[in-house]
Amino acid sequence: MTRIDPDAIRRGDRLALSRALTAIESNDPAGQAALAALFPETGKAHLVGVTGSPGTGKSTLVNQLARYFRQNQSPKPPKVGIIAVDPSSPFTGGALLGDRIRMQDLIGDPEIFIRSMASRGALGGLSHSTAAFATLMDGAGYDLIFIETVGAGQAEVDIAQLAHTVIVVEAPGLGDDIQAIKAGILEIADILAVNKADLPGSENAARALRMMLEMAHGKGSLPAAGKHLRSGSPIGQEVTQSLDQGWDPPVQLVTATEGDGIPELAEAIQSHQAYLQSTGLWQAKEAFRLQKDLEALVRDTLMEHWREQVDEDRFAEVLTDLVHHKLSPAEALQLLL
Amino acid sequence: MTRIDPDAIRRGDRLALSRALTAIESNDPAGQAALAALFPETGKAHLVGVTGSPGTGKSTLVNQLARYFRQNQSPKPPKVGIIAVDPSSPFTGGALLGDRIRMQDLIGDPEIFIRSMASRGALGGLSHSTAAFATLMDGAGYDLIFIETVGAGQAEVDIAQLAHTVIVVEAPGLGDDIQAIKAGILEIADILAVNKADLPGSENAARALRMMLEMAHGKGSLPAAGKHLRSGSPIGQEVTQSLDQGWDPPVQLVTATEGDGIPELAEAIQSHQAYLQSTGLWQAKEAFRLQKDLEALVRDTLMEHWREQVDEDRFAEVLTDLVHHKLSPAEALQLLL
Repeated sequence: MTRIDPDAIRRGDRLALSRALTAIESNDPAGQAALAALFPETGKAHLVGVTGSPGTGKSTLVNQLARYFRQNQSPKPPKVGIIAVDPSSPFTGGALLGDRIRMQDLIGDPEIFIRSMASRGALGGLSHSTAAFATLMDGAGYDLIFIETVGAGQAEVDIAQLAHTVIVVEAPGLGDDIQAIKAGILEIADILAVNKADLPGSENAARALRMMLEMAHGKGSLPAAGKHLRSGSPIGQEVTQSLDQGWDPPVQLVTATEGDGIPELAEAIQSHQAYLQSTGLWQAKEAFRLQKDLEALVRDTLMEHWREQVDEDRFAEVLTDLVHHKLSPAEALQLLL
Repeated sequence: MTRIDPDAIRRGDRLALSRALTAIESNDPAGQAALAALFPETGKAHLVGVTGSPGTGKSTLVNQLARYFRQNQSPKPPKVGIIAVDPSSPFTGGALLGDRIRMQDLIGDPEIFIRSMASRGALGGLSHSTAAFATLMDGAGYDLIFIETVGAGQAEVDIAQLAHTVIVVEAPGLGDDIQAIKAGILEIADILAVNKADLPGSENAARALRMMLEMAHGKGSLPAAGKHLRSGSPIGQEVTQSLDQGWDPPVQLVTATEGDGIPELAEAIQSHQAYLQSTGLWQAKEAFRLQKDLEALVRDTLMEHWREQVDEDRFAEVLTDLVHHKLSPAEALQLLL
């Protein structure tokens, strides 16, 4: 087990933080130990999820927002963390040289911490590791943490559970303008950004999004009228609870490569934070997230215990019968538990 | 518990199959019972995953392929099943009227069975339910089963584990042509289809894909030279094993709305099946998939048992301390297990 000094992380030692994150990723218990030590002081950072299809320019947008918050917030600019879980992100190495060069802009700033995440194989899956990353960065004093992820299916659900504020990024020309507006988007977006606003079709995309939002909020004719957070009773019996009575998700045009619209987007992020804090939703979200995280931890630990005590020969036998279709999965399960 | 007669499913009774799928989705034990009864006869269907970004036209492609296989394969056309787990699919209700009308074409054919999947909340997650759906359709005598899903992150991993053949669908004009080619795509694609080949840029997209494939296969300069399947030792200790020595993923231009390129794509699907069967990879994939499925089942069952026996008051207490940051997640875990 690696030794990681939580005090070093508290003091802002980037190497110590980096090592703790690596420990989380590689299931080294030192990661959880650091997390436990820092945990009492966490819960302060504003977690902002940024999601959308590949090609919408999420990374550039995050890059520009980070820079903007660093340069334009007085008296004391926030420390900014970036967690990239997007396989097409330049932060995780999926994208092209141009993006990587742009990213270099940020690296010179000692109050910006960028970390990509190995997207496969982490214990408890991506969402669990992402939550741990965010908590560790929070404990290291990062005030504003961007989590960049491709938006689709489970990843969308996860980001909505983890982040306080979710920005959904669209771009014109991603296939049919309307088809690109996926089902479920209205459920998770606190802010909608139409990026690449210098391209034709961006105004149309923004208009279509606004119309859909109006329909959802006004007439209730779309299935999910705004955002619902499931919470309530313990142990996963989920109660749907509407939360967004007071927040109308704005639709903002941005050209991230030029910085156009970035100040307005930054302002929307801060407004949403103020809204959450003034309504008590901030605390509700925190509680919901911690409950989900605890449940995931329980699930993984139970599985690990089981793996440790199961007879490997027996498992191999049952597996062979399963593969030869002599046992169904359910029958195999009964023999193993 | 619903009663579902497995013999009715075997005989091709669509209503019985439908009810079994619904039972799987709603965690009604009748679903698993039907699955167990049919399981010995399954393992015969060819599972074809179709994945890609929203807007690439996956649904139309699947639609046309299904129709083609039904009309052009003699002496006996296959029974075709379609499982749609894509939130933007017309099968699941995410897309526009035009798509739904196109889908109607298929519904008249009694040997085509289309089923969408509620994408959230199923026990064990989407991948577990998808596998169960595929097995039930297999048991109902469907020879060729298409599984349509948005390609991103975990969904990609899941489809690569479940399907025998993975078709990755691209389309020109989805943002930058090259950026749209996401990292990881070369790892999971058995066949690449560039759809909307009538649009400008499709030749370029196909060329770029071919170049990337050549680089990956020839010089080994890309991180993943083809597809790797993890398997081997029991209980999840995963060994990476290269599998695709003999298969070069073809890149095919298609205009699904017009049917152009569909015969060639259908042929590629059949070639890949023949390749898998002649090399023993078909069996290896089946074994791998069943092992993963069993592990997921074990995980879910352990969690369910734990939920049944944990003291709810105690859980609520621990949760409260966690939310107030008096306990870390790891400490909360220790108190609960």
